Amino acid sequence: MGDNSGTREETVAIHCLEGEAEAEAEAEERDPESNPLNEPLLKRNRTLSTNPLALVGAKVSYIESLDYEINENDLFKHDWRSRSKVQVLQYIFCKWSLAFLVGLLTGLIATLINLAIENIAGYKILAVVGFIEEDRYLAGFLYFTGINFLLTFGASLLCVCFAPTAAGPGIPEIKAYLNGVDTPDMYGARTLIVKIVGSIGAVAAGLDLGKEGPLVHIGACIASLLGQGGTEKHRIKWRWLRYFNNDRDRRDLITCGASSGVCAAFRAPVGGVLFSLEEVATWWRSALLWRTFFSTAVVAVVLRAFIEVCNSGKCGLFGTGGLVMFDVSSVTVRYHVMDIIPVVIIGILGGLLGSLYNYLLHKVLRVYSLINQNGKMHKLLLSLSVALFTSVCQYCIPFLSTCVPCATSLPEDVCPTNGRSGNFKQFNCPSGHYNELATLLLTTNDDAVRNIFSTNTPHEYHSSSLLIFFALYCILGLITFGIAVPSGLFLPIILMGSGYGRLLGLWMGPHTKIDQGLFAVLGAASLMAGSMRMTVSVCVIFLELTNNLLLLPITMIVLLIAKTVGDSFNPSIYEIILHLKGLPFLDANPEPWMRNLTVGELVDVKPPVITLNGIEKVARIVEVLKNTTHNGFPVVDEAGETSTGVAKLHGLILRAHLVGALKKKWFLKEKRRTEEWEVREKFTWVDLADREVNIEEVAVTREEMELFVDLHPFTNMTPFTVLESISVAKAMVLFRQLALRHMLVLPNYQAPGQSPVIGILTRQDLLAHNILTVFPHLEKT
Amino acid sequence: MGDNSGTREETVAIHCLEGEAEAEAEAEERDPESNPLNEPLLKRNRTLSTNPLALVGAKVSYIESLDYEINENDLFKHDWRSRSKVQVLQYIFCKWSLAFLVGLLTGLIATLINLAIENIAGYKILAVVGFIEEDRYLAGFLYFTGINFLLTFGASLLCVCFAPTAAGPGIPEIKAYLNGVDTPDMYGARTLIVKIVGSIGAVAAGLDLGKEGPLVHIGACIASLLGQGGTEKHRIKWRWLRYFNNDRDRRDLITCGASSGVCAAFRAPVGGVLFSLEEVATWWRSALLWRTFFSTAVVAVVLRAFIEVCNSGKCGLFGTGGLVMFDVSSVTVRYHVMDIIPVVIIGILGGLLGSLYNYLLHKVLRVYSLINQNGKMHKLLLSLSVALFTSVCQYCIPFLSTCVPCATSLPEDVCPTNGRSGNFKQFNCPSGHYNELATLLLTTNDDAVRNIFSTNTPHEYHSSSLLIFFALYCILGLITFGIAVPSGLFLPIILMGSGYGRLLGLWMGPHTKIDQGLFAVLGAASLMAGSMRMTVSVCVIFLELTNNLLLLPITMIVLLIAKTVGDSFNPSIYEIILHLKGLPFLDANPEPWMRNLTVGELVDVKPPVITLNGIEKVARIVEVLKNTTHNGFPVVDEAGETSTGVAKLHGLILRAHLVGALKKKWFLKEKRRTEEWEVREKFTWVDLADREVNIEEVAVTREEMELFVDLHPFTNMTPFTVLESISVAKAMVLFRQLALRHMLVLPNYQAPGQSPVIGILTRQDLLAHNILTVFPHLEKT
Repeated sequence: MGDNSGTREETVAIHCLEGEAEAEAEAEERDPESNPLNEPLLKRNRTLSTNPLALVGAKVSYIESLDYEINENDLFKHDWRSRSKVQVLQYIFCKWSLAFLVGLLTGLIATLINLAIENIAGYKILAVVGFIEEDRYLAGFLYFTGINFLLTFGASLLCVCFAPTAAGPGIPEIKAYLNGVDTPDMYGARTLIVKIVGSIGAVAAGLDLGKEGPLVHIGACIASLLGQGGTEKHRIKWRWLRYFNNDRDRRDLITCGASSGVCAAFRAPVGGVLFSLEEVATWWRSALLWRTFFSTAVVAVVLRAFIEVCNSGKCGLFGTGGLVMFDVSSVTVRYHVMDIIPVVIIGILGGLLGSLYNYLLHKVLRVYSLINQNGKMHKLLLSLSVALFTSVCQYCIPFLSTCVPCATSLPEDVCPTNGRSGNFKQFNCPSGHYNELATLLLTTNDDAVRNIFSTNTPHEYHSSSLLIFFALYCILGLITFGIAVPSGLFLPIILMGSGYGRLLGLWMGPHTKIDQGLFAVLGAASLMAGSMRMTVSVCVIFLELTNNLLLLPITMIVLLIAKTVGDSFNPSIYEIILHLKGLPFLDANPEPWMRNLTVGELVDVKPPVITLNGIEKVARIVEVLKNTTHNGFPVVDEAGETSTGVAKLHGLILRAHLVGALKKKWFLKEKRRTEEWEVREKFTWVDLADREVNIEEVAVTREEMELFVDLHPFTNMTPFTVLESISVAKAMVLFRQLALRHMLVLPNYQAPGQSPVIGILTRQDLLAHNILTVFPHLEKT
Repeated sequence: MGDNSGTREETVAIHCLEGEAEAEAEAEERDPESNPLNEPLLKRNRTLSTNPLALVGAKVSYIESLDYEINENDLFKHDWRSRSKVQVLQYIFCKWSLAFLVGLLTGLIATLINLAIENIAGYKILAVVGFIEEDRYLAGFLYFTGINFLLTFGASLLCVCFAPTAAGPGIPEIKAYLNGVDTPDMYGARTLIVKIVGSIGAVAAGLDLGKEGPLVHIGACIASLLGQGGTEKHRIKWRWLRYFNNDRDRRDLITCGASSGVCAAFRAPVGGVLFSLEEVATWWRSALLWRTFFSTAVVAVVLRAFIEVCNSGKCGLFGTGGLVMFDVSSVTVRYHVMDIIPVVIIGILGGLLGSLYNYLLHKVLRVYSLINQNGKMHKLLLSLSVALFTSVCQYCIPFLSTCVPCATSLPEDVCPTNGRSGNFKQFNCPSGHYNELATLLLTTNDDAVRNIFSTNTPHEYHSSSLLIFFALYCILGLITFGIAVPSGLFLPIILMGSGYGRLLGLWMGPHTKIDQGLFAVLGAASLMAGSMRMTVSVCVIFLELTNNLLLLPITMIVLLIAKTVGDSFNPSIYEIILHLKGLPFLDANPEPWMRNLTVGELVDVKPPVITLNGIEKVARIVEVLKNTTHNGFPVVDEAGETSTGVAKLHGLILRAHLVGALKKKWFLKEKRRTEEWEVREKFTWVDLADREVNIEEVAVTREEMELFVDLHPFTNMTPFTVLESISVAKAMVLFRQLALRHMLVLPNYQAPGQSPVIGILTRQDLLAHNILTVFPHLEKT
């Protein structure tokens, strides 16, 4: 094993487009907020290199893999054996209590956000309506734009200065987390607070973004904070919580949090569970299905309770809506065989427009990242310009519309309306008339959706208004998403989709029995499937949003067509963002060419593996820790030390545990195996759960360097292994299915004097993109 | 490797309760329909033995594991490399076409079944009503009982004589199949036909069973038959279908089939997908989510189209119902905080009664299996007695009820009714009166559910009627399930549950605003969760069944409570049946004590592994195949034949491929490695997909015995392996997550002269029950 003892050169550096290699030091000294998106992550060379940097939120961070595997070392085994029945019950009770709390808090915060948004936006709109009623159009414009500007300024300032990770939807990072990539500062208390306040500001400012994505992130933050018992600095050191100080349980909790978030956003408990299952989670088991279902049930009950309270008018301007957000159950759905034609058209349109949206958004985000790179001021200015543009459009465009007289069949309190919400907005029109575009634009996004989904109103909108609405929201949907405020993608997509859906309904009018409002619903669903590529969860979310079960068969057809069409052009929007951010996401299916490569060949292009001896010198451990960035090392009993005279693999040790052993000065004068009680006197299982350890903080004296450490008690004796002859495809399936962090590669046979382990593979090594830079010819096979 | 070359004693025998070991021969000669349920599967000894027998349907069969792993041998790799883009597209097109066909056919057959049942049962009831109107009660009784008797006789005779696997619901076997256990004759054409006809007979006979379980089985059969292009004997040898001649694709298709079945049964497309996901499938991936969703969408469209046709009266007595089966959307759901009390009570009751039902049904099934053991006649008689008892109860008990005058608020055509279906049945009452018990009992099961779910009818039933209804269906639910006809569990459970639910609603009457019909719905949901332990899928199925989204929050609470309470007593009914049938089902989670055992220890108590040389003598292959029942053998290149002088693991070869090589006389005169073209001249990849090969059918001459076979081209070079030091818990997770059939155990180090593989583990070796018979002390830890 002498060949492994040398220091290893890390190829962490990010190389420029021009191909000039920058020095490592330089790369590290860079502004951590600067953005490497325009640069390839890897230079082509014959060494498989890895890049631990990714864009987390709006900030470039070092990322690390998570340990979802159970670390079966001596200490864990002892703890496992000694766990009493009471402790097991404690653990189960805790798990369910946490799931309950996640649901409860997410529900409460979601209600709070809704209340705040509805009240802020409501009073804003009431004031604007007041100005307009007095014909003070300029004052109304200034008031409207000014308030929106200030709200955006606040939200953006918070995101830029205090928590850059709070910008955006957060869903891609949660997806990556559940795939096994830890993203720092993503689930902290600061992020949570900024996300809540920023989301209120951004949505109340009338920007074309939703609170849905942020709510998912908020749910995940709550789950993470609860699981670790507080913030990074102020944790409750409660004994019961110690069982949750591991990545596995945190993962499950965050899944519950994400489901609760979706449930709170759409008031869709089943949809929330399915969203997590279909889109967010990488690993799933039926116990989790049940627990997320519990969390979302709690959210649903909390929401219902608040709606009950608010219906009696105690929530200010908060609406009097029920549990169903965009109820379209009032129409009976009648359709015939011929209605398949518009349904198919909507599906195809959804797929085409969805993939086009993905493509364009990708371009816009690349441009934005170039702008954002220049510093905080640029970020802020970008957000404010978008806010200004949005406000101007929302206020001015309705003036283009001519006033339409209300249909005589409508009662007076329905048309026109002048309040905070309501259909048929009067705006600048004389009494008895309404302004179509004001109905769609000068309102909150939720109300805009409600108005465009409105059923039994076949003559409310003209084509021109719907066209303007659709075009405007296409532009806004593209330019708003990337700005530095918490922003969700769902609502912009629903708005866009409902636009062309209703337009199609209007055109199909005489030839179909399907209501225009339902056409809008189908359009929204189709664009969602075309862009996000979800099927079952979108279907259930729309079912729960609109409360019309009879729509189900046609919704399903629309979704399937839209997804199929979209998939033939580009990946889903979340996958595009994940890739853009450089997060090492392991896909579910290996690429076909991975069958033509063995892990042995992959290991060959990596630097030689660094193994440690079962009883290792302190000096060597310090040297290895300082000179590498690896997080796991194989532990091998040397040939001379085993009874058989053959080197024997003992297991895998984590960097954190090595540092822990050094920190606690677990040193031996001579090379010997220790007894279990010796270790247990010095370490508990809880000590080893700590991940926040830095080798630079550990002081080892010169004398101590000559001592030994018995690594056996800390070594995970049951690492997963593959033979060198296995194909990368199979290795990847193993790695992903079992949620591994390290995978040891064994030789097909062990010749005398040879090491029993020839390599170690991590997530980065199995990414198709990384492999292809070393084996470019594979792609063609 | 000399120690592995000996023959191995198979410990297949089933031992008696009395502990007397029976001879193997005797066990095999036994009536294959006899039932070993009352006997333990294993005798306590220090050798880990396996039992390849299980009760499939109502028949004891040899079962085999499935190969879900991709067999990466030379032939496969060549085929993989040579697959053109067109072929890949063919494959994808085929896959979707099959999913479409599965949905289409399942939808059509489900409609056919429904039509047949509604017409047969409808005319039966009309005739009975005719007799009663003429006061010819005895004639009515004889007619009613006689028809039911004949229908049951037909259904039972078919099941007993032609397809014993068609009896029961089939869901446990599908669950086992998707877990990786092949059950013979389960998905054949004969089973399908008997299941369809038998199900029509049994349900039309008014037995307390549903068509839901059988429809799931029918969907699976259709999927399997389509995937293999016909029946076992008459297959379409279509080139395009050759890609589907493997267990992986068959598994995916059967998942689609099961989802389609549930969708067809409940007209619940989303519920169908979730049922497969939550209850039936073991492996899941998002591509499958999408495909099952597609299948169920097709079913939904087919059903809707037929309902459209039938609404115009072209389907005889087939009802005029819509897509929603038990619509309760007519009531507005209002509930308050205090309503949490009855909801919690229903949940707890559901859990208690559900687990009690599971417990009692287990006992009844054990008794039934003792009866059924005695032969076909006993099976038939048992079915007929149950049918007689059911008919007598359904006809006679309504006479106990006093006639109730119709409420004046009800129009005359609603109360009383006298037709095939309808609420408020007149039966023996004077005009203007109805018979409560006849309304609930003397009708089809579907109509009984509809009547007990009926909303806005708070005074329709008295406690006594509901109590009698509940008690009767408890008895019928217990005694009906195990008889030899196709029978589903869903409907009996819904009937029982709705009984106590409505009863509770009646008692709570003045204290709650929830409608009695909704109480019945909640009761049914609670018992389903209490017995079957599903949550999300039951929730969605009930949503789709009843079309009342506002019920969602309380349904969720009821389900969660019922499942929690039930789980604290016993496992779900399907798990109980799986265990009863002796199917080797691998659970999702390893037992805690499995962490204290290594696979090395497990391998030690197994007979030594039998390995083959890379180039092996024909005589030895024949000997090994004849003397063992193993289905996979490690292939090792002997120490003398490798360049390094160390024995090297080449991979794993399947029995089927060995037999294939012998059958095609792939013999060599001398010991040499063959070239790829030599193999490809003789074998194609398709040849190796064949599983139906028997060593007894292969004739090898005495001269050929001395020749050699080069096993390398057939060997799967990438088997999954574990080190001997890994814990059984981790090995089991690996085995299950990757859907393995064989797992090789490697030594931690390979001493010179030692074999590179020390054991092979299969599904049977990892079953908790089997391990505990050898290591009984582990359970206590």
